[in-house]
Amino acid sequence: MPSYKAPLRDTRFILHDVLRVASYNNLAGFAEATPDVIDAVLEAGAQIAEEVLAPLNQVGDREGCHIADGVVTTPTGFREAYKTWVEGGWTGLTCDADYGGQGLPFVVGFAVNEMMSSANMAFAMYPGLSHGAYEAIHQHGTQAQKDMYLPNLVSGIWTGTMNLTEPHCGTDLGLMRTKAEPQGDGTYKITGTKIFISAGEHDMSENIIHLVLAKIVGGPEGIKGVSLFIVPKYLVGDDGKPGSRNTLKAGSIEHKMGIAGNATCVMNYDGAVGFLVGEEHKGMRAMFTMMNAARLGVGLQGLSQSEVAYQNALIYAKDRLQGRAISGTKAPEKPADPIIVHPDVRRMLMNAKAFNEGGRAFALWTGLKIDLAHRDADPATRELADDLVALVTPVVKGYLTDKGFEMASNAMQCLGGHGYIREWGLEQFVRDSRIAMIYEGANGIQALDLVGRKLAQNGGRAVMAFFAELDKWTGDRVGHPTLGAHAQALGEAVERLRKATFWFMQNAMANPDNAGAGSNDYLHLFGLVALGYMWGQMAEVAAEKLANGGAGDAFYEAKLITARHFIERVLPESAVHLARVEAGAATLMALPAEAF
Amino acid sequence: MPSYKAPLRDTRFILHDVLRVASYNNLAGFAEATPDVIDAVLEAGAQIAEEVLAPLNQVGDREGCHIADGVVTTPTGFREAYKTWVEGGWTGLTCDADYGGQGLPFVVGFAVNEMMSSANMAFAMYPGLSHGAYEAIHQHGTQAQKDMYLPNLVSGIWTGTMNLTEPHCGTDLGLMRTKAEPQGDGTYKITGTKIFISAGEHDMSENIIHLVLAKIVGGPEGIKGVSLFIVPKYLVGDDGKPGSRNTLKAGSIEHKMGIAGNATCVMNYDGAVGFLVGEEHKGMRAMFTMMNAARLGVGLQGLSQSEVAYQNALIYAKDRLQGRAISGTKAPEKPADPIIVHPDVRRMLMNAKAFNEGGRAFALWTGLKIDLAHRDADPATRELADDLVALVTPVVKGYLTDKGFEMASNAMQCLGGHGYIREWGLEQFVRDSRIAMIYEGANGIQALDLVGRKLAQNGGRAVMAFFAELDKWTGDRVGHPTLGAHAQALGEAVERLRKATFWFMQNAMANPDNAGAGSNDYLHLFGLVALGYMWGQMAEVAAEKLANGGAGDAFYEAKLITARHFIERVLPESAVHLARVEAGAATLMALPAEAF
Repeated sequence: MPSYKAPLRDTRFILHDVLRVASYNNLAGFAEATPDVIDAVLEAGAQIAEEVLAPLNQVGDREGCHIADGVVTTPTGFREAYKTWVEGGWTGLTCDADYGGQGLPFVVGFAVNEMMSSANMAFAMYPGLSHGAYEAIHQHGTQAQKDMYLPNLVSGIWTGTMNLTEPHCGTDLGLMRTKAEPQGDGTYKITGTKIFISAGEHDMSENIIHLVLAKIVGGPEGIKGVSLFIVPKYLVGDDGKPGSRNTLKAGSIEHKMGIAGNATCVMNYDGAVGFLVGEEHKGMRAMFTMMNAARLGVGLQGLSQSEVAYQNALIYAKDRLQGRAISGTKAPEKPADPIIVHPDVRRMLMNAKAFNEGGRAFALWTGLKIDLAHRDADPATRELADDLVALVTPVVKGYLTDKGFEMASNAMQCLGGHGYIREWGLEQFVRDSRIAMIYEGANGIQALDLVGRKLAQNGGRAVMAFFAELDKWTGDRVGHPTLGAHAQALGEAVERLRKATFWFMQNAMANPDNAGAGSNDYLHLFGLVALGYMWGQMAEVAAEKLANGGAGDAFYEAKLITARHFIERVLPESAVHLARVEAGAATLMALPAEAF
Repeated sequence: MPSYKAPLRDTRFILHDVLRVASYNNLAGFAEATPDVIDAVLEAGAQIAEEVLAPLNQVGDREGCHIADGVVTTPTGFREAYKTWVEGGWTGLTCDADYGGQGLPFVVGFAVNEMMSSANMAFAMYPGLSHGAYEAIHQHGTQAQKDMYLPNLVSGIWTGTMNLTEPHCGTDLGLMRTKAEPQGDGTYKITGTKIFISAGEHDMSENIIHLVLAKIVGGPEGIKGVSLFIVPKYLVGDDGKPGSRNTLKAGSIEHKMGIAGNATCVMNYDGAVGFLVGEEHKGMRAMFTMMNAARLGVGLQGLSQSEVAYQNALIYAKDRLQGRAISGTKAPEKPADPIIVHPDVRRMLMNAKAFNEGGRAFALWTGLKIDLAHRDADPATRELADDLVALVTPVVKGYLTDKGFEMASNAMQCLGGHGYIREWGLEQFVRDSRIAMIYEGANGIQALDLVGRKLAQNGGRAVMAFFAELDKWTGDRVGHPTLGAHAQALGEAVERLRKATFWFMQNAMANPDNAGAGSNDYLHLFGLVALGYMWGQMAEVAAEKLANGGAGDAFYEAKLITARHFIERVLPESAVHLARVEAGAATLMALPAEAF
């Protein structure tokens, strides 16, 4: 059976030493988040992840969810685990204190999310979706709606969902058919079918607050006619308690490649009572609030599966005796050497280590920027942080999930035939991680969002700020005795990213397909630069620590070696991505569809 | 439900026009294999693959195999399909006519194998393993053994298996514990446990002929004491019929990520009667006969899953309406454009198309070389062909399976959320294809075989011959109006492969870890060059066809565009692989195991 240990030291290193979270103690919410408090939260989160959630991960996969007449049963132990989760106050960790939350920084919430997802991704999605619903109502709901729904979402007594997709439309929500009929009393009747609704129905909470996109009858065509509604499973009475059953029902649950422990439902709304969130026909704006938060969460899922898969591959690689090191026997007292002596096994492990730690730093860096965007006193700082979050959100989602899946698959490869056997658990990480590349906007959509929208927003202000930050970092360190080589290599990768950016400016106007053709490669090039930057910062701190009392600490020494690994063996991929961006759309678009 | 159409035109194009199989009609067995006969075989194979095997692929996945007291039940329809397969004479297609086979060239057998595996990989493994057993007995058995076992293996009335792996040893067979005790009458008693035995027990054949590796008691330690035995499920009587039950039994079947329709068994041998194949303690040599054939077959499996996944992604991409082309609406009469208008969807489809057709050509090129190695009258031609087969076998296995999985996953991505749902079938291709990277020697072992063994064999004769062939092809075409750019780019990739080869020569002596560290990248660099060479040849033929009466034929025009796609968007990866080879082992080997 696979195991999981939360990467506490690495998370602390990033939060305290690299991001220096304590230095933001002037920000609202950060004053309480002292290093001691953060460490206590991380340790408590680690404990529940390791001891409560991880042991249920295979159970969830094996049993799946079951439905009978619209009633969903979750796998054995999920109800009890959710209860434990709620009682620990985890659902409200980063939520507004006005509604019962703890108001801790997002950056801390991200760290806890990663642990939960590593331990049990299918389980973690239940509270994860609730948080999306919380965000949408918190930002776009009326005060009455907030008062009615938020306390119970924050406490976790109720859960929430996001309802976007319909059988014939996922990416292109303008095709939506679910309709909302105004009832004259301020409510609407919602009718339609939504599919792929994660946590759409289950047996863990008293009520489920569905956030549903629908078109108000008589409104504008297409995407401009979409509005967002609160459609509770049980209508909430004046006493704030779940009352009469709304006319909505889970029709079936999907049989999926993975995340079997999460109930992915077809939801049928049959004239269900709904309450408008925000303005009529402005549903997409509110939906994007949920979506952007969800996208970052999905990026964390990619990372999380790579991390837990890596941990188990590492255990196996240290334990499994097979063959002798080609450089000479390492364990003469044993019948064979542990396979971690083999360079090709280490290649897979080091790639995963470099990705996990670099990806974690990138995700937490982004989490901190969200906090700054929300809480900094200085409008310019808030704007810059908000720009960067918007810019990197598709990269966090797309890069961390593409690579998360790849690394999980490599980890499985380390186990040879055992990796393919269910009992060992590695193949579940591969299957579970695969969905993260698809939902909340398939990674192709992330790449288009990055290239087609985020680059150009506000005249390119965000990407220019990103380049400025990187140019300063590399420029300040070129020629530096320990960081010079890193700065040099990273600077070259930044140059490639800049070239790719300018290539789009020059070539996408004449032929927009040139933007689409290079978007995936651009996203990956961006991800490489981002992780290279994180590795530069981590190497710098590690070198300082080694020089200042930390001499001989294997943790810091490993940081320097892994940073070098990233620069020498991962970052060179940036050249291929640039070459492909510059190849443009020609060979992609040349064939008529029938000639494929 | 997914569908499958055998790629008949493409296969014919490669066999007849690119490889010009008809020009070898002076070789034994080839005279009968006229283009008409080959086409008839391909069409009949396509029919059974499409109509009999493909419809059972999801059934096999859903039902899996079941075991009760050592008796295995295969999924609904498998028995009947196997009967149809046997009755069609397919099991003996390339087998020796002396034992009832049809003696057709291997290159034709490869083409049929690909179709079978695309249609139903789990099913195709049953006859696939039999063929391995056939090969081992045919090459290493006594005449009496051949007479006893081959006719029924060729006819398919019996099936065969390969038994190598034990719980504590897979790659490192020297650790093997299964023992063989000589009985004085020329037979041995075999005792031990073998795991991961594909098709180890089932209900489709009258007898199962297990080929089992074991150590003769008192023999040399380690790999030098391993011998190969025939251990039939039913001992064969003097009448040639299955007689008394041997003391061997399937203990359990594995629950796997995929290929659920194939029974992967734990096999317990409890003093079972075994018959030595070949010489004592020379079992590995005989095993490699099976293994090399099996490795090429596994390479075809990787290709096959990419092909069928691509076909289904293509159908979806032409059918699914979502969004509008960024270059302007393409289907104004519809509510949205089919997603094949989107460059990023085409990126995934074109990459798969370039891989499938290039990989098919590479596999068939290798198949033809096997025929030449066996059948050519000229010893020098035989030696050269044999050298090349030995050299590229790990590349066919490793590259086609790594990429096959990647392409299957990309095909799944084209379907968005539907790709993750079992009913659509795409996720099964991903799961099924994943095993091909692992079994018959994990791809890391293939890479080591290539770099550590094949490159240096006979003083590098094989790789030098490969370079000579490529240098001639590119050299003859540099500056050519239609092929010059291809030759130029391919020549650069060949140069990178040569550099990597020399880098190993210079750096692996001093530190053997440098060979292991770069082996995976070297294998991929080799695969890129091989496919680039195939694409060059295909482009050349396509250009000739277009110039000589084929003008306007979309098939040939697509070949030219896809060749260009490969050169512009795939082959550039070769630079990264060289950079990684040249990075050496430093960052991989620096960390002590406990510092990971």
